[in-house]
Amino acid sequence: MSYIENDFLLDNKVAVQLYEKYAKDCPIFDYHCHLSEYQIYENKEFSNIYEIWLKGDHYKWRLMRHYGVKEDLITGNASDKEKFVTYCKVLSTAFGNPLYHWSQLELKQYFHCDLQINEENADKIWDYCNDYIKSHHINPQYLIEISNVKAIFTTNEISDDLEIFNQIKKKNFSFKVLPAFRADKILNIDANNYLDSIHQLGDIKNFEELLKEVENRLQNFIKVGCLASDMALESIYEVPSYYDAKLVFEKRLNGEPINEKEARIYKGYFTYFLFGLYSKYGITSELHIGAKRNNNTKMFKQLGPDSGFDSIASDHDCIHLLSKLMDRLNSEGHLPKMIIFNLNPKMNAEITTLIGCFEDETQKGKIQHGAAWWYLDNYDGINAQMRNLAATGHIATFIGMLTDSRSFLSYSRHQYFRRILCNYFGELVEKHQIENNLEHIGKVIKDISFDNAVNYFNLKL
Amino acid sequence: MSYIENDFLLDNKVAVQLYEKYAKDCPIFDYHCHLSEYQIYENKEFSNIYEIWLKGDHYKWRLMRHYGVKEDLITGNASDKEKFVTYCKVLSTAFGNPLYHWSQLELKQYFHCDLQINEENADKIWDYCNDYIKSHHINPQYLIEISNVKAIFTTNEISDDLEIFNQIKKKNFSFKVLPAFRADKILNIDANNYLDSIHQLGDIKNFEELLKEVENRLQNFIKVGCLASDMALESIYEVPSYYDAKLVFEKRLNGEPINEKEARIYKGYFTYFLFGLYSKYGITSELHIGAKRNNNTKMFKQLGPDSGFDSIASDHDCIHLLSKLMDRLNSEGHLPKMIIFNLNPKMNAEITTLIGCFEDETQKGKIQHGAAWWYLDNYDGINAQMRNLAATGHIATFIGMLTDSRSFLSYSRHQYFRRILCNYFGELVEKHQIENNLEHIGKVIKDISFDNAVNYFNLKL
Amino acid sequence: MSYIENDFLLDNKVAVQLYEKYAKDCPIFDYHCHLSEYQIYENKEFSNIYEIWLKGDHYKWRLMRHYGVKEDLITGNASDKEKFVTYCKVLSTAFGNPLYHWSQLELKQYFHCDLQINEENADKIWDYCNDYIKSHHINPQYLIEISNVKAIFTTNEISDDLEIFNQIKKKNFSFKVLPAFRADKILNIDANNYLDSIHQLGDIKNFEELLKEVENRLQNFIKVGCLASDMALESIYEVPSYYDAKLVFEKRLNGEPINEKEARIYKGYFTYFLFGLYSKYGITSELHIGAKRNNNTKMFKQLGPDSGFDSIASDHDCIHLLSKLMDRLNSEGHLPKMIIFNLNPKMNAEITTLIGCFEDETQKGKIQHGAAWWYLDNYDGINAQMRNLAATGHIATFIGMLTDSRSFLSYSRHQYFRRILCNYFGELVEKHQIENNLEHIGKVIKDISFDNAVNYFNLKL
Repeated sequence: MSYIENDFLLDNKVAVQLYEKYAKDCPIFDYHCHLSEYQIYENKEFSNIYEIWLKGDHYKWRLMRHYGVKEDLITGNASDKEKFVTYCKVLSTAFGNPLYHWSQLELKQYFHCDLQINEENADKIWDYCNDYIKSHHINPQYLIEISNVKAIFTTNEISDDLEIFNQIKKKNFSFKVLPAFRADKILNIDANNYLDSIHQLGDIKNFEELLKEVENRLQNFIKVGCLASDMALESIYEVPSYYDAKLVFEKRLNGEPINEKEARIYKGYFTYFLFGLYSKYGITSELHIGAKRNNNTKMFKQLGPDSGFDSIASDHDCIHLLSKLMDRLNSEGHLPKMIIFNLNPKMNAEITTLIGCFEDETQKGKIQHGAAWWYLDNYDGINAQMRNLAATGHIATFIGMLTDSRSFLSYSRHQYFRRILCNYFGELVEKHQIENNLEHIGKVIKDISFDNAVNYFNLKL
Repeated sequence: MSYIENDFLLDNKVAVQLYEKYAKDCPIFDYHCHLSEYQIYENKEFSNIYEIWLKGDHYKWRLMRHYGVKEDLITGNASDKEKFVTYCKVLSTAFGNPLYHWSQLELKQYFHCDLQINEENADKIWDYCNDYIKSHHINPQYLIEISNVKAIFTTNEISDDLEIFNQIKKKNFSFKVLPAFRADKILNIDANNYLDSIHQLGDIKNFEELLKEVENRLQNFIKVGCLASDMALESIYEVPSYYDAKLVFEKRLNGEPINEKEARIYKGYFTYFLFGLYSKYGITSELHIGAKRNNNTKMFKQLGPDSGFDSIASDHDCIHLLSKLMDRLNSEGHLPKMIIFNLNPKMNAEITTLIGCFEDETQKGKIQHGAAWWYLDNYDGINAQMRNLAATGHIATFIGMLTDSRSFLSYSRHQYFRRILCNYFGELVEKHQIENNLEHIGKVIKDISFDNAVNYFNLKL
Repeated sequence: MSYIENDFLLDNKVAVQLYEKYAKDCPIFDYHCHLSEYQIYENKEFSNIYEIWLKGDHYKWRLMRHYGVKEDLITGNASDKEKFVTYCKVLSTAFGNPLYHWSQLELKQYFHCDLQINEENADKIWDYCNDYIKSHHINPQYLIEISNVKAIFTTNEISDDLEIFNQIKKKNFSFKVLPAFRADKILNIDANNYLDSIHQLGDIKNFEELLKEVENRLQNFIKVGCLASDMALESIYEVPSYYDAKLVFEKRLNGEPINEKEARIYKGYFTYFLFGLYSKYGITSELHIGAKRNNNTKMFKQLGPDSGFDSIASDHDCIHLLSKLMDRLNSEGHLPKMIIFNLNPKMNAEITTLIGCFEDETQKGKIQHGAAWWYLDNYDGINAQMRNLAATGHIATFIGMLTDSRSFLSYSRHQYFRRILCNYFGELVEKHQIENNLEHIGKVIKDISFDNAVNYFNLKL
């Protein structure tokens, strides 16, 4: 039997009551993830526990690398089973790592498997879960519905074919699948394959046409139900003039090289343009900052991006420039709803206090400090973001958790988040630091777990 | 009945004993606030709970904006009662926010009102408190004396008329009211109204006259009892030569425009000059760093400064330059007593360790890491500053809490701070991490609560 | 009787069991300290408790300066006894400071002295400990062996005479003493006495000869058993070309002045060169970053370096440049085993995530986030580093604690560290956040306490 019991992470009686009564059965609104809309549409049964649990999860790969595991057993040619057994071994002593909890929770929630994950049990877990997958015909729909998910925003490139979303609609799933608009490939003018991304938009002859086509594409997204956009920024940039940005773009379009300064000019204008566009169409802007990508060139050449070689960036100018950008958009009446996901914990306080400078009466919690993200998505990180938000913002306006995941099993992260939330409030009650009125507190828990997000995105369910 | 009981924030028995026996009845030395000396002098009865509790408090305004409240109900034309009811509603779910605690503590401490603050009770609280204000003739003197305040340092501009302090003396209050000297308007050479501020000092013809007049004004402050100064800096600056600063000042005086670099030259010299002056006259320098002011231009135009649109700054050079400045002053024998208030929690450790490099035998705790300030003045922020100070400094030399407030009700923040202090020490005792000698610990608590400040400022009470 | 009991810092039953059964009796591998190999070799009896406990300990000096103690009683001409009594007084209220714990632990562990340290007991402690020192003939060997130390890496300058290590070998102590290689004096080209350091290496005529001689010296270190190197960097630098660095070095060698930019060029190349060298010879690189040295020029002139006037630096570029440097070394196949000791707590998360980008199959935990160092080596700092490592790395690969000390009594810091470690794991067990399998957890505790370091350095014991 694993260590996970019903009161997992719930250290006091009030917390247990709050979780059982208000959090546990709340539906899930997954407003940002990297799930594949095609996989959802095709809805194929999974072949084994490796495919569903380990494959493609760079969090787990990193953990194995820390342990000195051979790359062959991580992303290489070793068999699914060998990789699975290795992961079970490595995980068994990863005390304090969120994977230690998530992995065990996932086995319990989706396969009712209570075996402690370790090298000794690996064979048993392998057989048990694979049998379970087969006997229960586990496919994406099964996992999404059993997780009580009501809406999923997949992350889609600007040039993606959107017809798939119409096809999904026809399936009459009990959940909605909508695309979130991402134009990062059009933003990253310094990428090698930038012009390919531009050409995918059609025959773009100048900057004006580019901006028109981006707007056109966004309109297409909206036609299939898009309510949100996504953007990952390495830095925030000064906003230059339209003409300076146009110059850089057209230089690049003509195949001329551009330097770093020029790239910043283009990016500065283009981010400004995108936020304005999102405001115009009522699209929420989900912004990810604080990541330092692809630190290891050798492994980048071997495995490409998103393979576990990213870290937390330190950018002292970020807050200053973010303030200037938001201020300009706000002054011009074009500040969209924003969810700012931050990867550097030292910036938590800077971001929550900045956000408070741009809230207004158009929307409760218009500018959100997003839930603890990526390297912060763990017990201490979630607590820190939540307590920080409570202390310098207003916790009851928080739209809560998302998965940000590539795996259908990751919905257990909502359970994880909600347990921490209930534990926090329960502790406040037990310490007489808030009113002992569970119905009143339960309302806030339900809001943070689900209802706030529904209202925030104005989604008809 | 509200959730606030006698053991509020005191989670263990030792903490309760320490608070009851050593902290609760200690007087208050409020060495930095924004109370009005005129309001104290005039001593008018308050008209209602809105005036005394909500009006002018931008902390509360921000909380309402987070919630999406209309500006009309915050700073606009809505009635006092409507604004009051709205605040009660918004506050009722602001779990973890210091206002949730402060507001309830204020009602309890000053009006013996135990009603839980929420929308349902708002009417009752309104009537009850307004009756209480009338029946008890509540005025500033009442609130200050019932708070057991022995000294208040108001924050005064360099050109303020100081006669009011003589008038206050004649009133024979049970507390002293003394001005703290602030020359920020003379420092901020890039402000639009800078020349007005200069002209208020008289007919200043050159830099030499300016510096003389500043010294002259400080002497006038000292004549009415001034012991402290205040300074808010956006950055710390390099110290240029006297002549470079003179050049910039005289250019500005002649109505010529100056650029950002020139502004920094002037500010660098002027801050250096001020610290030297404070050292010469034994004036403590209270320094505030880490704030990013007026992020929202649109609202600045509507409401002006100090309306809830400031945030936490990120300035990586600050510590380096502060070290250089302190080192120079120290080498020249002109480093004054300093209290450094820091707004960015990520700098806590940098500041406490820097301070330890400039302590000396002239004064116990000569350079102070000021109590958690503004956005950090909450349960976690106070704990963090205190534990940081304890771990890398010497907690028993700490001069403790101040209000930094614009409201006479804010003295309950001292209670809040002391409860956290007693809880911290109580926990150390219960965990056998310090000696179980309550008298010995109680002495330290009394020192931090009051006695250290009296000795530090060398105030005759 | 002092407050320190057997369950000191162990707040739950599981923690007590884990500490008693797995941690307490583990030997110590001190892979970085500032102990003197000559003092170990000479092995003279100590004359009194001041000499062994206070003398040369700038942590304690700082604490006294915070308290306003006269420098005469700290580093000046006052008698040993007077300084001792003053320290006892100052320490008695330093709640929350690690010295409050360490000092008491040291008296208990090495002298079985349970007297509470304070002014009243100072005389008694003085007499008791001095008697104990005499009656037990306490010398370095006694303290090292009673601490169960198996290996000590002293920190040695590149030009040090290494014959002493052969002499120590002949003594057949129960512990090994090996030098760690440090070339900081060759790195710091901007130091006044840089050329003296170069001349100590022999007749160096150009850059090529310098690099050859550095390698030659490292080989000599290796001959006497060296397994590790040490480096303290104020910043991380860009790596320039060999020729640019050569130019700067030869300019300096010819007595010409070099500017700051040139110094960075030289340092950038030389650090890159050193890391490559360490990789070539399998030498672990211990890297210290985040310290801001010698803030107080006045006291530097009086007392020199390492006297208690250093603080925590804020360098926003550090992570970016460290990533670039590691990436280059890694791409070239020359990234050595590294232990990165960080002094700024705000960088903890940046460093642990960066490390995870350069782990590989050549070594379990090849790149280490070193244990909490200097100003972070306290209850909260150790917990923070440990929890951070657990959450974003793999705690079971951690090589754990070192002393970094100048005193033979400081081995009690290992006890301190292990108690915190056991308390952390014990709490996880009691909260049902990890498996309740004490043998399994105990293995990890033993690994972190000792075995991982033995394997990491590949030391034959």
